Amino acid sequence: MKLTGDMLIGAASVHGREAAFRATDPSSGETLEPAYGGAGPDEVERACALAWQAFGAYRETGLEQRAAFLETVARRIDDLADELVRRACQETALPRGRIESERARTTSQLRLFAAVVREGSWLDARIDPALPERKPLPRADLRLRQIAIGPVAVFGAGNFPLAFSVAGGDTASALAAGCPVVMKAHPAHPGTSEMVGRAVQAAVAECGLPEGVFSLLYGVGNWLGGALVADRRIKAVGFTGSRAGGLALTRVASERPEPIPVFAEMSSINPVLVMPAALAARGAAIGKGLIGSVTLGAGQFCTNPGVVLVQPGGGMDALLAGIAEATAASAPAPMLTAATCAAYKKGVERLTAHPKVEVLARGPESGGINEGAAAVFATDAACFLDDETLSAEVFGAATMLVRCRDAAEMRAVLEDMEGQLTATVHMEVADAEAVRALLPLLELKAGRIVVNGWPTGVEVGHAMVHGGPYPVTTDSRMTSVGTLAIRRFLRPVCYQDLPPLLLPEALLDGNPLGILRRVNGALGRE
Amino acid sequence: MKLTGDMLIGAASVHGREAAFRATDPSSGETLEPAYGGAGPDEVERACALAWQAFGAYRETGLEQRAAFLETVARRIDDLADELVRRACQETALPRGRIESERARTTSQLRLFAAVVREGSWLDARIDPALPERKPLPRADLRLRQIAIGPVAVFGAGNFPLAFSVAGGDTASALAAGCPVVMKAHPAHPGTSEMVGRAVQAAVAECGLPEGVFSLLYGVGNWLGGALVADRRIKAVGFTGSRAGGLALTRVASERPEPIPVFAEMSSINPVLVMPAALAARGAAIGKGLIGSVTLGAGQFCTNPGVVLVQPGGGMDALLAGIAEATAASAPAPMLTAATCAAYKKGVERLTAHPKVEVLARGPESGGINEGAAAVFATDAACFLDDETLSAEVFGAATMLVRCRDAAEMRAVLEDMEGQLTATVHMEVADAEAVRALLPLLELKAGRIVVNGWPTGVEVGHAMVHGGPYPVTTDSRMTSVGTLAIRRFLRPVCYQDLPPLLLPEALLDGNPLGILRRVNGALGRE
Repeated sequence: MKLTGDMLIGAASVHGREAAFRATDPSSGETLEPAYGGAGPDEVERACALAWQAFGAYRETGLEQRAAFLETVARRIDDLADELVRRACQETALPRGRIESERARTTSQLRLFAAVVREGSWLDARIDPALPERKPLPRADLRLRQIAIGPVAVFGAGNFPLAFSVAGGDTASALAAGCPVVMKAHPAHPGTSEMVGRAVQAAVAECGLPEGVFSLLYGVGNWLGGALVADRRIKAVGFTGSRAGGLALTRVASERPEPIPVFAEMSSINPVLVMPAALAARGAAIGKGLIGSVTLGAGQFCTNPGVVLVQPGGGMDALLAGIAEATAASAPAPMLTAATCAAYKKGVERLTAHPKVEVLARGPESGGINEGAAAVFATDAACFLDDETLSAEVFGAATMLVRCRDAAEMRAVLEDMEGQLTATVHMEVADAEAVRALLPLLELKAGRIVVNGWPTGVEVGHAMVHGGPYPVTTDSRMTSVGTLAIRRFLRPVCYQDLPPLLLPEALLDGNPLGILRRVNGALGRE
Repeated sequence: MKLTGDMLIGAASVHGREAAFRATDPSSGETLEPAYGGAGPDEVERACALAWQAFGAYRETGLEQRAAFLETVARRIDDLADELVRRACQETALPRGRIESERARTTSQLRLFAAVVREGSWLDARIDPALPERKPLPRADLRLRQIAIGPVAVFGAGNFPLAFSVAGGDTASALAAGCPVVMKAHPAHPGTSEMVGRAVQAAVAECGLPEGVFSLLYGVGNWLGGALVADRRIKAVGFTGSRAGGLALTRVASERPEPIPVFAEMSSINPVLVMPAALAARGAAIGKGLIGSVTLGAGQFCTNPGVVLVQPGGGMDALLAGIAEATAASAPAPMLTAATCAAYKKGVERLTAHPKVEVLARGPESGGINEGAAAVFATDAACFLDDETLSAEVFGAATMLVRCRDAAEMRAVLEDMEGQLTATVHMEVADAEAVRALLPLLELKAGRIVVNGWPTGVEVGHAMVHGGPYPVTTDSRMTSVGTLAIRRFLRPVCYQDLPPLLLPEALLDGNPLGILRRVNGALGRE
């Protein structure tokens, strides 16, 4: 595919006239063609107007048609073949294996949402039939279904050029819900975005859908994002990125004449608890596993384990040795962008210079540009509790061992912690009672609790939660990964005494769609 | 029951030391004993601390125990017998029949949520079993359930002293979800609130639950509500009332260090569309039905039909005659409070004096105090569109006929309208195509669509939606009436590779609770 640098506004290709930018290969600093022109007010207006026009027809597409569309997007991404992998590797410096598996995740995510659409439970169809003889008052015929909330603005994430970008989880779940998507590409991988965007655009055409179902805009700086979120036709926002960015968009959304929900997934430090028996039994393995998770993808995961709580005890030396060995053996890798790397280095320097922080281990550097070598720090729980800068996320391959005096101090550190995506526990059977006592606290702090594993690696399935209490997300009741993510973009409507000729198909007597429905409260296929 | 004027803070009775107030019988102006002392910072602190203490145990009560608790609350409200009805009538001037049916609704709502708790679908239990052999990467064992979000602050509504107050829909759904409730009684009916509050308090004790599961505070003015919503231990808010009140609380909630969701249900004018064939077929009956709905409970329903859109055509004279006749026959009734009545009269005067508004009919007055006689106005669609003060809610027995030139102008008025709780259509088969064309717009404007009925009367069931797009609520994805209301107070947690001895019972292999669960995406009782 020849990249053009054009935005995709419905079926059109449009070259933006605002500040142009190019991608950079972070591993070489080389600028990559073509130039991407930024969107201005005309493009935002056009994309949002088309999305609004498309909304009426798209939200009423049949289950099969909508599912087939999601599968067509997946197939057309597969059709991009190695060209997509090469460009994504170039733009992100992520290794080929990672990009290939991310592509597989992205297409299987689209196919999973196709299956969700077909299955139909997301419609939450409910029927309370009329009770005309009921005393003292008859009951009307009441039927409920979920409908799409409206066009959604989706922001591509820097750290997942495929799975959290143009056809990633937010887009897939919004499209599955029946919402058109106006996408703002992440400026670090515009070529990858254009390729995937053209796949979506072609799928829209192939499936005979209205062109406004999908548009893709580019822009550097903050103007474009704010303009999209402020547009009256946008009814919800999906965002993955920094806390500053997420909160700024949330502010714009709340100040609209009609405020809209923003589903922002932001910084997390993902605490890991090493329980005493686990430390004693396998301190070295835990240390190695930790560094494996910390350095995966140069540490650029939302679920990167950024803080490790440990109590004194047998196995501590083995843990430290495991950390030291794995860190020394870690491969330096270029980070996603020069800015990301600069922020990482600044964070590492800040901790290195901190009088209460010890540098436990540093990974080797190869001298390549934009490299973020691993960094492992340690401090005492008292210092950690005392200085909130120590719990600020350092995005990259850094982590901090926090030495707790005892179980009570470990709990105190957790209690003081903000909301997190994940909380991980390493334990043996002998730790079970202590973990059981901590579990309710972990549930209140995190969206996912991991035992004897690592939080990196977010499975896309039915039981996944990628979310958690504020400030890690702006809505703890939702998830941005997994099939439950569709719920963000739906709202219920009740139909009272509608004649059958006006009822939506999902609510007709005889259940022509064959979906699960709740009749008088009981789930079945009636 | 001897009323004490005490707040109920956990198991304690506490007389507030802040500004005291008494209820008034709106039909006589008579002051009702006892005096209710307002809550200060100590009482807020104590109620929230107790709620937080109770939260851990309460959210993990078994399904049967929690359901039995809700049923105990219902039984203890029934046990209040006629004393409760008498006091509620006195404090609200609502007729006995209305209070009796509201009590029945309140207790059946509690029993319905008990059934919901037992059925267990609200847990949304999901299991994606481990796939250790999967290539290229194994899948971990992932299990999801919904947990209670935390203590909820609930604000009693003035217009429903039972069904939207101390043990009303917000309280019932929050308790069903596993959330302790800190209640702010509506100051217009403190005696009713105390009685019901004591029933809840006694049920907490009878069921052996921690005392902090429920507290009841009083206060006039805005301080108490703001303090409750700002308290760090409160994690969500349920509110029914004015737009100013709901938005003020939303602002407080969004400015907290940890913002929390506010589920506010606010003003609505509930448009009614009279389609041409329906007008021709039964204009008089529609006019009479309209006035019946408008004057029900002195018009003090959130779902009161405040605007009626009609096109010129046969039946118009009959409609006007029906309206005139029913309005003349309407019984004047005292409103809930002197302030409510004063606001109603001011609204009626404003419309009466409006140069573009015609007074179609006025209901008779009996000279009783605080009476809100019915008022029916008319204007042209062009004027209605031109002057937004004409679409401001006049809370009480007022409605406005809006004459639309044609179907296009009727649509234009709807398109210009804000989000609504309900939209009602009167139609005959001959109107079906026109209604079908309007239906998508109605879905985007309202949470409930009613055909050939009236929006007053909100059934508490599985298929009800009492909600709608902003500004009628602050979260269009939710409902404050019906079983779906429980979802407001839940958030999902994912458990990865937890050993069985740490898993919540809902997620254990073998399904000991016997609930519906989603295993690999398929619903069943596995």
